[in-house]
Amino acid sequence: MTRLEQQIRFCREIDKEKEVYRQTYLCSGNRRENDAEHAWHMAIMAAVLQEYANEDVDLLRVMTMLLIHDIVEIDAGDTYAYDTEGLKSQAEREQRAADRIFGLLPEDQREKMMDLFHEFEAAETPEAKFAKALDNVQPVMLNDASGGRDWREKGIRLSRAIPRQKRTAEGSRILWEEVSKPMIRRNIELGNIIGDTDLEEV
Amino acid sequence: MTRLEQQIRFCREIDKEKEVYRQTYLCSGNRRENDAEHAWHMAIMAAVLQEYANEDVDLLRVMTMLLIHDIVEIDAGDTYAYDTEGLKSQAEREQRAADRIFGLLPEDQREKMMDLFHEFEAAETPEAKFAKALDNVQPVMLNDASGGRDWREKGIRLSRAIPRQKRTAEGSRILWEEVSKPMIRRNIELGNIIGDTDLEEV
Repeated sequence: MTRLEQQIRFCREIDKEKEVYRQTYLCSGNRRENDAEHAWHMAIMAAVLQEYANEDVDLLRVMTMLLIHDIVEIDAGDTYAYDTEGLKSQAEREQRAADRIFGLLPEDQREKMMDLFHEFEAAETPEAKFAKALDNVQPVMLNDASGGRDWREKGIRLSRAIPRQKRTAEGSRILWEEVSKPMIRRNIELGNIIGDTDLEEV
Repeated sequence: MTRLEQQIRFCREIDKEKEVYRQTYLCSGNRRENDAEHAWHMAIMAAVLQEYANEDVDLLRVMTMLLIHDIVEIDAGDTYAYDTEGLKSQAEREQRAADRIFGLLPEDQREKMMDLFHEFEAAETPEAKFAKALDNVQPVMLNDASGGRDWREKGIRLSRAIPRQKRTAEGSRILWEEVSKPMIRRNIELGNIIGDTDLEEV
C-alpha cells in the first residue's frame, strides 16, 4: 500500500466519527450532537476565543488536537462525563482504539497524531489545557441553549459536575468565570441542575 | 454587549450549521452528511494530505477556511454542485448570510472571517486552491465509499461533473490524478456515473 493509499484509508475510516453520538443536545434541542460536530464546533471556538487562554497558545496545535481527540471513540464509544464505571476503563479502551485507527496512517503521521492525542489527555501543556477548557465550555453552552435538557434528564447535581467544570479555569480563567459559571448558575436557578452545594464556595 | 458576549453569541449561532444537510451520504450510506461534519472531515484531511498541495500552504489558514466556509449556508442553504438555477443566486445569498452571521463577531474578527470566506470563494491563493481541492475530493471519497448512492439517485453524467472535479488539480495535481480520477473511473465502470464522455480526454 502506498503512503497516499494509507492516508486515504485513514481519512475514510474517520468518517465513522459522524455516527458516534454524545449525550449533549444541539442548541435547538432537536437531537443529540455527534463527535464530529462537537470537534468542528470547538475548533472554531478555539480560533474565536484564543485571546482568553491563560497562556499564549499555538492555535494550529489547539485546533488539530480538538479535531482529532475524539477519533478513538469510533472504537471506544463516547464515555459520558459522569459515568463512573465507564471512566475506569476509558483510558485503556481509548489507547487500543488509538493504536488501531492512527495505526492506519504512515508512521510519521501516526506518531504525530498519537502525540497530540496524548498531549490532550495529559492536559499539561498550555495548548492542551486550553483545548480541555473548550471541551468543557462547549457542552455547557449547548446545554444552556437547549434549556438544560440533558442535565434535567440525567438529574445532574452541581456537586458532581463541579470537579470537571472547575478545571476549565486551568485553561481559561475568563471562560470559567464569565461563561461557564454564569451559565451553570442560571441553570441552578432554573432547576435544570440540582444545586446541592454552593457554586461560589466550591 | 461585551466583546466576549458577542463572541459567545457567534459560537452559539453557528451550532445551526449542524442541521444544514448536504446531498452526499456518509460512507456508511446511513444518512446524508451535514455541513459541520463535512467541514470537520476536510480540516483533518488538510492536515493529513498537506504534502500533496501544489504549492506550500499555511495549514492553519487552510484549516480555518475549511472550518468556516459553509457557515453562510445556515441562512443560504446548501447549493448542490449541479443545481444550475441555485448556483446563479448563490453568491448574493451567501454574501447576505456572511454579513449577518460574521456580523455577530467583534469587528476585528468579523473582518478576518469575512476575508477568509472571500479568499476561499475566490480560489486564487495556494491555501484557497488546496482547500477547494479538498472540498471536491471529500464528497467523491464519500460517494465512492457509499457505492455511488448520491450519483445514482441524481443520474449524474460525467460531462456535468467534470468541470468542477477537474479544478481539484489546481490545488493538488496528485489528489486529482491519484484519488479523485481513479474513484470517478471506477464509478463509471460500475454504472454509478453515466460515462457520456471520455475521462482521459476531458
